[in-house]
This record gives sequence, structure tokens and C-alpha cells, in this order.
Amino acid sequence: MNKIYNAYDRYGASSQKQDVFNAIKNLSHGISTTTFCNLFPSPFDKQLIALHADGAGTKSALAYIYYKETGDLSVWENLAIDAIVMNTDDILCIGSTGPFYLTNIIGRNRNLINQDVISAIIQGFEKFTNKMSEYNIDIMLTGGETADIGDLTKTLTLDAVAASFISENHYIDNKNIQSGDVIIGLESTAQAHWEDMPNSGIGSNGLTLARHTLLNNIYKNLYPESFDNNTENDLIYCGNYLLTDESPIAGLDMGKFILSPTKTYLPIMKEIFQYYCNDIHGIIHCTGGGQIKVKRFINNLRIIKNNLFSVPALFEMIKTSANIDWMQMYEIFNMGHRLELYVPADLASEIIAISGKYNVKAKQIGYVENNDTTEIVIDSKHGVFVYN
Amino acid sequence: MNKIYNAYDRYGASSQKQDVFNAIKNLSHGISTTTFCNLFPSPFDKQLIALHADGAGTKSALAYIYYKETGDLSVWENLAIDAIVMNTDDILCIGSTGPFYLTNIIGRNRNLINQDVISAIIQGFEKFTNKMSEYNIDIMLTGGETADIGDLTKTLTLDAVAASFISENHYIDNKNIQSGDVIIGLESTAQAHWEDMPNSGIGSNGLTLARHTLLNNIYKNLYPESFDNNTENDLIYCGNYLLTDESPIAGLDMGKFILSPTKTYLPIMKEIFQYYCNDIHGIIHCTGGGQIKVKRFINNLRIIKNNLFSVPALFEMIKTSANIDWMQMYEIFNMGHRLELYVPADLASEIIAISGKYNVKAKQIGYVENNDTTEIVIDSKHGVFVYN
Repeated sequence: MNKIYNAYDRYGASSQKQDVFNAIKNLSHGISTTTFCNLFPSPFDKQLIALHADGAGTKSALAYIYYKETGDLSVWENLAIDAIVMNTDDILCIGSTGPFYLTNIIGRNRNLINQDVISAIIQGFEKFTNKMSEYNIDIMLTGGETADIGDLTKTLTLDAVAASFISENHYIDNKNIQSGDVIIGLESTAQAHWEDMPNSGIGSNGLTLARHTLLNNIYKNLYPESFDNNTENDLIYCGNYLLTDESPIAGLDMGKFILSPTKTYLPIMKEIFQYYCNDIHGIIHCTGGGQIKVKRFINNLRIIKNNLFSVPALFEMIKTSANIDWMQMYEIFNMGHRLELYVPADLASEIIAISGKYNVKAKQIGYVENNDTTEIVIDSKHGVFVYN
Repeated sequence: MNKIYNAYDRYGASSQKQDVFNAIKNLSHGISTTTFCNLFPSPFDKQLIALHADGAGTKSALAYIYYKETGDLSVWENLAIDAIVMNTDDILCIGSTGPFYLTNIIGRNRNLINQDVISAIIQGFEKFTNKMSEYNIDIMLTGGETADIGDLTKTLTLDAVAASFISENHYIDNKNIQSGDVIIGLESTAQAHWEDMPNSGIGSNGLTLARHTLLNNIYKNLYPESFDNNTENDLIYCGNYLLTDESPIAGLDMGKFILSPTKTYLPIMKEIFQYYCNDIHGIIHCTGGGQIKVKRFINNLRIIKNNLFSVPALFEMIKTSANIDWMQMYEIFNMGHRLELYVPADLASEIIAISGKYNVKAKQIGYVENNDTTEIVIDSKHGVFVYN
């Protein structure tokens, strides 16, 4: 297979979404442009509100194929985790670990998606919130909307919105990221205490690319409803794998490996905030934009990431299958850690220790220094890549 | 054309969404099962929070065709109004007219939907919130998510979520609807003070049926991306109209007639709540479920609607085109009023007068009486229909 230049772009996706940023650039960002989520004054004294929207993206197209092939409804339960965590773990970057108020939005093609699927998704929301309550994380399910919109939705879309509150004296603003900070990364792989199985680390980003470049071409004819007709022919399911092939993780087939539900960092961060909330300079959830995500929150700093986690097996496989540049890989995928904390050096060991207690490896993956311009340096065993 | 039995169902849509209700039946409805929106305790003393999700539904498929045919971006601005009002006017049924915190969720096929469209939608959100601020209605735009998900979305979906707060001493609960109440309906057609043009009254419900049964078959070949491939062939764009044909409203072509943005009742209700908040027994936003929507909020009451507004021209046209039973029409469409207030008889004239000031006709459309079972009676010039 030839190298896929601008791979993401050719799939009609984008890690930077420049045109969206242009469209919304005049909208209010609330009290600060550098908080990870927008924060607004609430009607209540000294309390700010975050209202945040995100979803499972095209991961649902993979859940759909897997479900059709195997009849296994658990992938829909897990998709609910993706929709929740993509919201809650964005919001934790401003310093809140709840209570969260959460609503879901399901867009459904009712000719293809039956009640069992909707029930499994709802059950997934319930199971995950119950699990989190064991860690004193309070996520209230406030309802939702399931729209039958087959004229718009080929299979199913799953989004959620979470609301949370934080004191105006205690929120985290990435404008405080500064020279001398060390960067602690929390791994996206392995199996945290609250997870039912080991995680491939993918989260809910880059799934269009992962699915098409890994999966075998047989799915093209079997599930034409699972991809965009406008996609260039040679990009559609152009990989080697069947969903039921073994994955690098024992006990997971390739389907469930790619469908690993987005790992939440809520229980860890709840404990960290208890001690260090006022000492953390910034937190970045490495979702769309991958390891470069921090870039739009900082100014005249160089971020050097010179001690990243080993590239997880799934990302190695995507890299090989898609034949994408390493430089682009770091912009699309989290590549090993999905949460990074910018903190004074003397906090590092405590934070790493807390994370470890929950079976989530953390380590110093880089540091921050002053610079004339803003740039991110990925200094990896695959090469040194500079983004500016 | 033959009569379309179970028309909505055959389009993969449903006015009652029974399977969705089954899937979510065990989820919490908050402090009461009979408030129009779910209400939950907030972290703040005696304050409840409503977090509500809804969207423009398949109206976006029509906006898409209209935009492709005419290049007129204003239909996307108006679609933002639909997404907002489907939320705010649900929330006003619990007694809140803001402040609202609003976030949007756009699902986009980037191969077909460019930045101009996204910008127009965002501009629509801004214009409407600015317009509402003239009436002291505060809607804060808190951000949103635009996802490039061409593998899932044929063209574009637009949803929104609104949060609002209300005192636990002042919310409206439909359990208070009682024998002796009169029902005041507020018309869905005509042109309220804040509207740029006269309104066909359709709101954001029943659009799949309206679009397919009204529009000419030429759009089937021109815009295969605007409908579900699973739809039975004879149901696809099986009407007589071109989008550019004249509509019954001078100055509006058929496209803009069907695309009339959902009329909000916020300014009227803000004034009504100022005087009568504690006297209103119930409010129903007649969206999905049309004139029968009230049914799931009441028990052992008969709702008699014997003085409805004349059926607006658009619904007459859909009825004729689709050859649907009148009984079903009242279950799918609002048929003339999209908001109904259940109040003691002595409040009627004051409420009607306030609504009239904003150029929205209101009148007593029915009344409530005790009964052994729960039933809705539509007593219209098209016949008497009993729903139980």
C-alpha cells in the first residue's frame, strides 16, 4: 500500500479542525481562553459552570459491525463509556471531578438499530456511573434524546453533554503552564482498577483512520452502511485484519481491542486534587490533536516530550497498516498517554505514586522551557519532530 | 397514491417512540415523573437543575437540499433556531425562562458540508440569542462540538443541550393538571414580534414525513445523500412540490415554508410567569406526539380539545399529499398550537391577552375533566378522535 499522505484529511476527518475553529472563533470562550473547557459564571455565588459536549465519534460504526458479526451487545455498553469519559475527562482538566450532570443524544437509523442496542447503551451509562460511585465520583444521568433520523444517520451516533461546577477560586487554567514545569503523563493502556479488561489505549479519537486502515476489505461489501460513499475507493477497509482475529492482548479479539472503552482518569484525579489542586499549572486531555493538543493553550513556550511511553501495539499496527508518517501519528493519536499534568518538579513523585495505586502507570514524559515562539518537540526513538 | 398506513413507522420514525421509552424506563426521572423536563437537585441550596437535549432532527436534510439548490445560507442560520427552541421551550414547561446555558453538537460529513455552513449555523445561534436578549431572555452559548463523522452522517445533524435552574419552590409539575382546568393554546403559525417572517407552524417534528410526502420525486436522483437507502422506494420524495414553488404564504417558497424555524414562546411565557407562575397547573410543548403529548403526564383525566385552531395550510397539504388519517395527523403534528397551558378558568383571559401583545394568538382550545381512565379527545371538524 502506498503512503497515505494527509491520511486523516482524505477520510474527511481532521485532527486540527481548522475550519471549525474559524467558524467559532468569535464565540465567547467564557472567563478565559486557556481553560481546557469553557467556564461561565453561574447564577450562584462564586461558582462557575462548565457545559461540555462530546461523543463516541465513528467508534459507533465499528461497534455496529462488531455487533452484526458477533451479536455481542457489550460493545454498545462500552460505547456509553466512551461518550461519558470524553466529557468527564475534558472537564477534569479544569479541576472538577464532579458532581457531573450528564445527558445523552442518540441519533439512530431505526431500520438497522433495534431496542436491544438502545437498552445496552443505556445500561452502559448506568453501569459506568455505578462503578464510578464506588470511587465517590458522582455522575447523575439526567435523561437524553433518542432521535429516529435514518435520513441523516447511517447507523447510530452517540453523544453526551456533561455539566459541572467549580469554585472561581479553584479552577485550573493552562495559562499557568510555565518554564520549569515537568509534564506527567498517565498511560492510556493497561487495566486500571475500574476497568473490566486491558485497554488498547485508543480512546475515542482517530477511529475512522484506525478502522479503515486495519480492517479487511471483506467488510466493505458486507457493511456498506458503515462508511461514507464519498470515501476514495482504495481507502475503504484497506487493512488485513478480521474483527475476530487475535489481538496483541490475550483474550481480546481485534474488534474488542480497537473498541477498548476510553479509560477515565477520574478516580486518580479526585485523589490528586484533594492534595494538589492549587499546585497544578495545567492539565491536557490528549484527544483530537493527540500529543500536540497542548499547543493552542500556551504562548512562547517550548514543550519538550523526550520520555514518552513506548508506542502501544495498536498505534504501531495503525502506523504500519496505514503507512503514515510518525510525525502525523503523534498529531492524531495519544500514542501512550491520554492525560498530561503540568506541575512543579517537586510534585512529580507524589502524583506518579497516586496514579500507580490505581494501576495506571504515570511518569515524567517531558518538561517546559521558555522560547521565542510556541513549539512542541517530540523527541522519540522514531525521530525528533517539531510542531510550530 | 395509496393511503400510507402507519406512515411514520414506515419511514423508520415514530411519534410515540415506544421502544425508546422501554429502553430508558428504569432510568431516574429526577424529583418527579410528571415534570415536562427531568429536574435534579443541584449543588446549590433549594435550586434544581434541568439539563435537556434535543435537536433539529431531519429538518437538516431539507436545509441541505434547499441550500444545494439555491445557495441560500440563511436556512442554516434558521436551523440553529430549531435546535435552540426545541430545548428552551421544553424547559419553559417547568417554569424557567432562563438564564439558559447552551451547547451545540454538530455531526458533519465534511465531504459535503463546508465551513460556510458551519459558520452560518454558529451565526444563527448568535443572532437568535441576541434577538432574545432584547426580551431579557438570557441564553449563554457555552461552546460545542463539531465532529467530522462522514462514516455515520450523510449530511449534517444539529443538536443542542440546554441547562437551566429553577427554585424548588417554583417549578411547574404536570401532576397538578386537574378537572376544571381550561387549556390555553398558543398558535404555532403567523409571525410573532421576534420572527423575521411568517411561520408555517411545523416546528421540528414530523419533518421526515413532511419532506418525503410533499417534495417532488426529482430530488430522489439529485440528492441520494438526503434519505435513508432502506426506505421503501415508493415512499421517497413522493409528492408534487418543488422547493421553489410558491407556498400559501406570500414571499415564502415551499422550501422556506417547510423550513420555518420553530417559533419560541419564551418572551410571552416570561411575562406570564411574572404574574402567574404559581397558578399554572401544567404546560405541554406539543412536539413529538403532537396534540396527544399530554397523555403521559396525567392519570385518570379526560382531556377534551374541542376548539382547536384551524388546521394550518402546511398540515392540510401533508394530510392530502400523504393521505394519512386525521387521527394520525394529530399524533404527529402540532396542528395549530405548539404550546398549551393548563390553568384555572379565571386566568384564561389574562394569558390570552398577554400572548396577543406579542402577535401570537392564544385561545381556550379545550378543558379537563375527571375520568376512570386517561384519554384525550380531539373533537374537530374533521371528526372526533379518542386516544387512550
